[in-house]
Amino acid sequence: MVSVQDNSSDANREVNGPPTPLWFYFDFISPFGYLASLRVDALAARYGREARWQAMLIGVSVMKVMGLKPVPQTPLKGPYTRRDLLRYARRHGISLARDFDAPPPYPIPGARAFHWLDSADPVVAKSFARALFAAYWQQGRDIGSVAEVARIGEGVGVEGAELVAAIASGGEGDVLLRSAVDRSLALGVFGSPFFIVDGEPFFGLEKMELLQDWLEQGGW
Amino acid sequence: MVSVQDNSSDANREVNGPPTPLWFYFDFISPFGYLASLRVDALAARYGREARWQAMLIGVSVMKVMGLKPVPQTPLKGPYTRRDLLRYARRHGISLARDFDAPPPYPIPGARAFHWLDSADPVVAKSFARALFAAYWQQGRDIGSVAEVARIGEGVGVEGAELVAAIASGGEGDVLLRSAVDRSLALGVFGSPFFIVDGEPFFGLEKMELLQDWLEQGGW
Repeated sequence: MVSVQDNSSDANREVNGPPTPLWFYFDFISPFGYLASLRVDALAARYGREARWQAMLIGVSVMKVMGLKPVPQTPLKGPYTRRDLLRYARRHGISLARDFDAPPPYPIPGARAFHWLDSADPVVAKSFARALFAAYWQQGRDIGSVAEVARIGEGVGVEGAELVAAIASGGEGDVLLRSAVDRSLALGVFGSPFFIVDGEPFFGLEKMELLQDWLEQGGW
Repeated sequence: MVSVQDNSSDANREVNGPPTPLWFYFDFISPFGYLASLRVDALAARYGREARWQAMLIGVSVMKVMGLKPVPQTPLKGPYTRRDLLRYARRHGISLARDFDAPPPYPIPGARAFHWLDSADPVVAKSFARALFAAYWQQGRDIGSVAEVARIGEGVGVEGAELVAAIASGGEGDVLLRSAVDRSLALGVFGSPFFIVDGEPFFGLEKMELLQDWLEQGGW
């Protein structure tokens, strides 16, 4: 199911260049994706990897492809997951401006903007993603609004009007997001956060320790 | 959602007696439940707790109450979870006699037997549960068969004919299992393994490290 993005062995890597990236998939509307975003670069750097961020859409993977309800609306799992989130936030001294049970924002403008920026410069896209995550989860702003997404883009040096054109329906961002979502599904990515390193998939914030062990040991 | 089984603080505990148990919920058909069963007693003992085992039915919680498909049949998540299971087993040197994707055994006779035994003696019930888990996941036997369950019961000193009567429809085991499943649902238990300690819920094999931190620190 999970295709191998780059299957170079450690030996090949020495010949072929730097280690392959740690791929980090997230949906901006996912609180666990946000919490993972605060840690993933440090984790990757510790093992000489670059974290490559990729926006995906759980509305497509979870609801359309898997045929599941959103977690907050799933009996038993919804209340448990809310509690688990608050337990994590409390432990790490993080306060969230949005409740787990609140209606999610419209994820499309941010995700389109991310992929449009990423196609030109992954570093700018990552700065944008950090700012968008913070705008929603720390400041409680409406990241489903095109105007808000444009403002956040301007904050990382992107021309607002250009961004607005790119994230319109049929715009470059629209096309890029569609193919990115297809690609993530083909790789088996279904939730947020999701990580792939050397073809090995890890789902969930709580898998970051296992992912670290995997990087440390070079797999098993 | 999650009721508090025993909310005594550390201070109360000193007055009131020994620490409350670590409740461990599992379904015999769940490979992750089996893997947790291999570790839960040592974890509890390390913090002066007793692990109290409780059979539940994911066919009721996941399929009926939550309205979800079985994980192996869930697109994307099924193949991922299979891979995650094999990765864990490989790391811990465990080989499983049954494949994750194989049709599950009929879970009722074993679960009824467990609760019938547990109502008389939790220690015997735990020995029985260990033997049943091993029979399925290590030896590949059909634990959905009443005759097999009776044999496993005899292996831990239970009279086979008595056990067979108890696990018949309408028998004591049937009644006890129904109320145990209702109780677990009322406590918010939905998956296998699931742990509750001092009212705090933890779902999944991968939460055992967090559970350990919780026991170590007395919560946060």
